[in-house]
Amino acid sequence: MGDSNSERKIAEEVSGVAELAKELQDSASALISKTSHEEQSLRQRALALDSNIKKLRSSVDSAVKRGILDRKEAEKLDEELFRARCIVNDGDVAAFLPIKPHGGFLKMFLGPISVRATRKDVQLKIKEEYNSYRDRTAFLFLLFPSALLLLRSWIWNGCLPTLPVQLYQAWLLFLYTSLALRENVLRVNGSDIRPWWIYHHYCAMMMALVSLTWEIKGQPDCAHKQRGVQLFLQWAMMQGVAMLLQNRYQRQRLYTRIALGKAKRMDVVWGETAGVEGQLWLLCPILFILQGFEAYVGLLLLRTALVGVVSEWQVVVCGILLVLMAVGNFANTVQTLMSKSRFKAKMKKSKSKQELEGSSPKDLRSGRS
Amino acid sequence: MGDSNSERKIAEEVSGVAELAKELQDSASALISKTSHEEQSLRQRALALDSNIKKLRSSVDSAVKRGILDRKEAEKLDEELFRARCIVNDGDVAAFLPIKPHGGFLKMFLGPISVRATRKDVQLKIKEEYNSYRDRTAFLFLLFPSALLLLRSWIWNGCLPTLPVQLYQAWLLFLYTSLALRENVLRVNGSDIRPWWIYHHYCAMMMALVSLTWEIKGQPDCAHKQRGVQLFLQWAMMQGVAMLLQNRYQRQRLYTRIALGKAKRMDVVWGETAGVEGQLWLLCPILFILQGFEAYVGLLLLRTALVGVVSEWQVVVCGILLVLMAVGNFANTVQTLMSKSRFKAKMKKSKSKQELEGSSPKDLRSGRS
Repeated sequence: MGDSNSERKIAEEVSGVAELAKELQDSASALISKTSHEEQSLRQRALALDSNIKKLRSSVDSAVKRGILDRKEAEKLDEELFRARCIVNDGDVAAFLPIKPHGGFLKMFLGPISVRATRKDVQLKIKEEYNSYRDRTAFLFLLFPSALLLLRSWIWNGCLPTLPVQLYQAWLLFLYTSLALRENVLRVNGSDIRPWWIYHHYCAMMMALVSLTWEIKGQPDCAHKQRGVQLFLQWAMMQGVAMLLQNRYQRQRLYTRIALGKAKRMDVVWGETAGVEGQLWLLCPILFILQGFEAYVGLLLLRTALVGVVSEWQVVVCGILLVLMAVGNFANTVQTLMSKSRFKAKMKKSKSKQELEGSSPKDLRSGRS
Repeated sequence: MGDSNSERKIAEEVSGVAELAKELQDSASALISKTSHEEQSLRQRALALDSNIKKLRSSVDSAVKRGILDRKEAEKLDEELFRARCIVNDGDVAAFLPIKPHGGFLKMFLGPISVRATRKDVQLKIKEEYNSYRDRTAFLFLLFPSALLLLRSWIWNGCLPTLPVQLYQAWLLFLYTSLALRENVLRVNGSDIRPWWIYHHYCAMMMALVSLTWEIKGQPDCAHKQRGVQLFLQWAMMQGVAMLLQNRYQRQRLYTRIALGKAKRMDVVWGETAGVEGQLWLLCPILFILQGFEAYVGLLLLRTALVGVVSEWQVVVCGILLVLMAVGNFANTVQTLMSKSRFKAKMKKSKSKQELEGSSPKDLRSGRS
């Protein structure tokens, strides 16, 4: 009697649980379809608004040209439109805008998965983590080559052994791959990172890969044979210092720009050189020296290959890649400096105007640089 | 007059757009907070149900032991509970269960981003794409080493040149990295892939990386010096054939198992060897021969290093990795075969029972193998 009672009780509980599972399944699928429906309608509204803003912007411009609007009024309207665009592209609405195409690089490594975070705070966490990853990286970037060069003269009698150098090269390959992947993820999550810095990391990946296949020549006369490796390590040390400075500078600048409403918080401005004045005078020359040295190492490698001292194909490829990266970096730094000075001129103009007019609302003023 | 009219019209439109942007922002943040609230409550219900099912399972077990339930009744209840668990873990509810920890590998390359798809159809698309990626891969896996070996005897006079071999090794490194990343993504998305197959790809990544740093010796007497590379290429060819067979077999088996309700659609069963009888007799010997050959190549490399013909550290590391992978593969294949035979015995028992009882509902019966 007691037995059949507990038997019935267990059977009842089991069927209750089965019932609950079915109910839960129903609510889950209802929630999913409802949410995706609502998201769809938000997406359509956001897209319509976005194209409306664009249309109005051009009609304000043409109204100014046709003399219907005076310049002052037009600027006020432009500001209002810019603010509306910021709300759409940078606020919660951004999560519902169509996803930027992922690009081949992410797809190649991960397949067709979505790496976009819907919630803004998660996106910002990704950005923060990327920044601290770069900090750690810059430190290692300085440490590894310095250690190799110091050990070379202290312990290894001027002759780098193969294994440590190759470990360093393998680390570089991993590092650049992960940076390129992370930057692609940031782009998908709405960062305005300049495409060149991603291409730059593709080049650097290629170079790390090629340098791995490059045989490190030993005794005798290794000081002569290892000249290329040595130059490369020196360049990497300088790069480490520059990265540390840049990271510090970029962070400060990004926070300033966010405070001024000039940057979205997802912006990545690696290698850009506009902003906090005092440090710029330190950073700019270092960047240009670094780029010059990069090109010099590249040309030196190419000369070695052409003269015929070392005839491996790796030397030629590394040389070409280094020169390419140096030129690209230089062009991008100059471009940024120029847009910065244009931006400054505009700021000055609008500032003096404001001073004349006695008004000074600085937020969301002069467009994003 | 007309001018001030159009001026007013534009100004009105602009402020209308600004208003719309604010409204949209409000609806977006309302939708986000509402959705995350509802998701939270679903998650709690799902977790409570999951632990309830587990509790009931053990109380059914103990009831059988204490003689309160007879075995037949208990089996029926177990089935019902299993079905409930399938609904929770495999249906729409699964999207709201807490995310499996991502594991260090994904975090190392991508940072702390979520690669989990919420919708079931997206998850299945990821799985499908992974399968077709493996198909393409297996084809190249066969093609590359065969081409190298054929060209070696036809054109290169028995002496492999450096560049093509290194390109092949670089491809292997990329391939294993992307496979390891994709399999980690699958795991996060609910696949039951055996951990060994992921570890196996970590080992293979290591080996590809090490082999890149391994100098390919040229003339004179390169047939002797390149013995290791040649063996490795032959092994890779066999691996390609085995992969093609496995892929075909696994797909058939997965579809059969899904149809029988024995597998979730996210399961990856690479290297497992249970199922479609006819092909198993072909696949099993090939797998064992392959594993034997893998170990043989590994031991041969180790012998070369110990005897002192080639004293590079790469030879030792590759040898150890090959032996490790061979042993791991063997152990995993045997384990799977054993669990398969246990599963079969259980199936037979329950089948003969069903025949006695005259019932034959085959869905969701005997648990997942």
